Amino acid sequence: MNQKLARLFSPHSVAVVGASNNFDKLGYHVMKSLVGNYRGKIYPINPKDYKIWGLDSYASLGAISDNIDLAVIVVPAHMVPDALHLCGGKGVQGVVLITAGFREIEDPGGSVREEEIREIAAHYNLPIIGPNTFGFVNLSSGVNASFTSEFSRIEKGGVALISQSGGICHLCGFLAIEQGVAMSKLMSLGNRCNVDFPELLSYLVEEDSTTRVIALYIEGLDKPRRLLEVAESLRGKKPVIAYKAGKSEKGDSASRFHTGTLAGNHAIWKGALRQAGILEVDTAEELLDTAKAIDACPLPRGTHIAILSSQAGPGMIASDALEPAGLKLCRFSEVTQERIDQLLPPVAIRTNPVDMGPAWYNPKNIIEILKTVLGDRDTDGVIFLAMYASANLKLVEGMVEYMKSIESFQKPVIACFSAPPGVWDEPVKALDRKKGVVTLPTPERAVLAMANMWKVGFLMNRKR
Amino acid sequence: MNQKLARLFSPHSVAVVGASNNFDKLGYHVMKSLVGNYRGKIYPINPKDYKIWGLDSYASLGAISDNIDLAVIVVPAHMVPDALHLCGGKGVQGVVLITAGFREIEDPGGSVREEEIREIAAHYNLPIIGPNTFGFVNLSSGVNASFTSEFSRIEKGGVALISQSGGICHLCGFLAIEQGVAMSKLMSLGNRCNVDFPELLSYLVEEDSTTRVIALYIEGLDKPRRLLEVAESLRGKKPVIAYKAGKSEKGDSASRFHTGTLAGNHAIWKGALRQAGILEVDTAEELLDTAKAIDACPLPRGTHIAILSSQAGPGMIASDALEPAGLKLCRFSEVTQERIDQLLPPVAIRTNPVDMGPAWYNPKNIIEILKTVLGDRDTDGVIFLAMYASANLKLVEGMVEYMKSIESFQKPVIACFSAPPGVWDEPVKALDRKKGVVTLPTPERAVLAMANMWKVGFLMNRKR
Repeated sequence: MNQKLARLFSPHSVAVVGASNNFDKLGYHVMKSLVGNYRGKIYPINPKDYKIWGLDSYASLGAISDNIDLAVIVVPAHMVPDALHLCGGKGVQGVVLITAGFREIEDPGGSVREEEIREIAAHYNLPIIGPNTFGFVNLSSGVNASFTSEFSRIEKGGVALISQSGGICHLCGFLAIEQGVAMSKLMSLGNRCNVDFPELLSYLVEEDSTTRVIALYIEGLDKPRRLLEVAESLRGKKPVIAYKAGKSEKGDSASRFHTGTLAGNHAIWKGALRQAGILEVDTAEELLDTAKAIDACPLPRGTHIAILSSQAGPGMIASDALEPAGLKLCRFSEVTQERIDQLLPPVAIRTNPVDMGPAWYNPKNIIEILKTVLGDRDTDGVIFLAMYASANLKLVEGMVEYMKSIESFQKPVIACFSAPPGVWDEPVKALDRKKGVVTLPTPERAVLAMANMWKVGFLMNRKR
Repeated sequence: MNQKLARLFSPHSVAVVGASNNFDKLGYHVMKSLVGNYRGKIYPINPKDYKIWGLDSYASLGAISDNIDLAVIVVPAHMVPDALHLCGGKGVQGVVLITAGFREIEDPGGSVREEEIREIAAHYNLPIIGPNTFGFVNLSSGVNASFTSEFSRIEKGGVALISQSGGICHLCGFLAIEQGVAMSKLMSLGNRCNVDFPELLSYLVEEDSTTRVIALYIEGLDKPRRLLEVAESLRGKKPVIAYKAGKSEKGDSASRFHTGTLAGNHAIWKGALRQAGILEVDTAEELLDTAKAIDACPLPRGTHIAILSSQAGPGMIASDALEPAGLKLCRFSEVTQERIDQLLPPVAIRTNPVDMGPAWYNPKNIIEILKTVLGDRDTDGVIFLAMYASANLKLVEGMVEYMKSIESFQKPVIACFSAPPGVWDEPVKALDRKKGVVTLPTPERAVLAMANMWKVGFLMNRKR
């Protein structure tokens, strides 16, 4: 299966069954996602048009002489069985089945149809993502096999998201664009014909070298034990975090309607995820913040954190957030404290949390404080805070210049560099996800991500 | 005091004592904030230059023949007493004292100097914001009397922020730009010479008609009782929410260094704020989200909420978040339920939370469902969720068209319209803060803001 999925996610050629020139059809938007973006060969299939999105169109899959690795299917539900037979007969390696109208609808005909395609898939040994999915985006190899072309604007990086909801996938994908979360893959499971969490988790951990951290959005599963067993067997190889719906009774019953499965008692899920080495988080933003931080920084080896702030207020807020998150302020050694005292004039708080305000216009000293603190044995990670106005532009540029060899400390630095949009874009963005530093929007979110990084490491390494 | 503050915040003329052409001086940035933005008369004061930012410069305040309403002072600390005497002598109505180096520094000379300026201010009956402040921005009347010119990019609206930290003010101001929070005023107290929370709260509630909701960031106060008494005397007039630092022992001791006051036992604060009718929130984003929602929508009259979602996943997430936030799903009347059944094809969840997915391409029906639910007696507010891809552009445009007379229901609609940045800008933004609808970035944040709106209303109206 892993080999098949590798081909499905990085195909040499893609056929779009139901490609269209009509904006109101999903086949139009799938073409929009591929054309000008995907570097392999694209085959639009539609019996009515000769040219689709400027490419030669084919009446059917059988009319194509070349091999097809991936078929994206967007034709109406009743035409899907035939389309799958054609795929199987032609040796297509994998299918993304966007079409809806299967198990998820009230009409029992939907379930019958889903059983039929499941049998066809088994007959040809054909992996199918979907039905009832928006598709997937492989940012690492430039394949956007979805009806949302904007996902190609997500930066390339190490975060993979497997989602049981297309809506949540869109929410997270758009947040990723806005907040600089760099991703490897974004995939929506749909009805999980024969590709489910366990298959994708195994593929991402074992086969996909571009993925460094795996984020899951889970509603409910028919066989939760299978996911948990696979996760446990892979434990320690890559960090896995999960965002779980169905915590409330109502959310739970909504899940049953939506995906045909009960989300199940949340307390049981909570324990089972921990047991399998998966960290559960509470919100979409927490999922992305944590994944972004893990992708960019080494995990902290303990819970002792230094807070370095260029203004007292944000430092206080971060200090307040530490303990409820399970972290504590580290204790500087005498040597560290003496060095900080030298670097800061005698007007500020020089103990942890350090108020670097008085060194505000001295980027060299600020970076020197950061390095000194990172070098302290009791420091497991640093929360680094600075709210910039345009007056601080030179300072930020100086910081980018001086921020070298931070990576060599092998400790995470989570920064909140708040800056006016527009000024932000240039020098501050240059510090995000570089040299072991990651930026998040607020001090509270920085602290929560740091705590989650520690917990992920703890769960990964825990003895079974 | 209220009259003096009204003049200070909406001056007819502003003098900048210490104006500069040098980028490295704060006097440069204060001028940048005013020039081309402020419509009154600007008087740069600097004995060395003839022209500053293209305007005629004056050697001293005494050289100006016109009346000066507001003086912004950025000269070094030792020159401040003389500058204040000149202001008092000339009949200046109010001062923003940006200069630092007073009570906040370790050197006892700072406190001596602060006592001196306090006496001068008392002598002339001169309100002073600061010292050690970045200033204020009055978006309602276009006065940016701060060293951060980018704050002028915040949209004009009804949210006023009073902050005890310049850093947090910057964090919130930049978040406001990014997240469409429309503000009336942004003010940083600094060392609170003679203008403190009570004075500003009273002014904003009693005098400032542009302010509809007041957000506070509090660290610690010398006389907390005074703020609480003023708040209680004004209770019920305008919603007040507070974000309080110093919850932890360390945050607390940092506050003592920073502002010379203990933040104090948080449990006591928590109770006292409630008692005074002020809602406490936990994060910067929660403060802004709640204020934004209150500014744009009527407060819910109860805790019964309808969730309308265009995808099942986000609807489940919102349902999960309701109960922990103190809200519950409302129960539709038979009439309401019948109407929804007519508007949605029989393939979806039509009970609360409603999955509007099957009406996805029918904006008229979606808005009709919204109106039906708003009209139900048991509905106190609506959470409205839709994750848009570019394929949904026409739908969004249709929604803007059909979304009329929502306001007449006098119930809040908090929406999460997630959309790819760029596509978002046009039609979706057109729905934000219009017609009784406000948008927030995630389903969880939408629910939390709705819960806070209800709590604010409860605290405002509670019998003393």
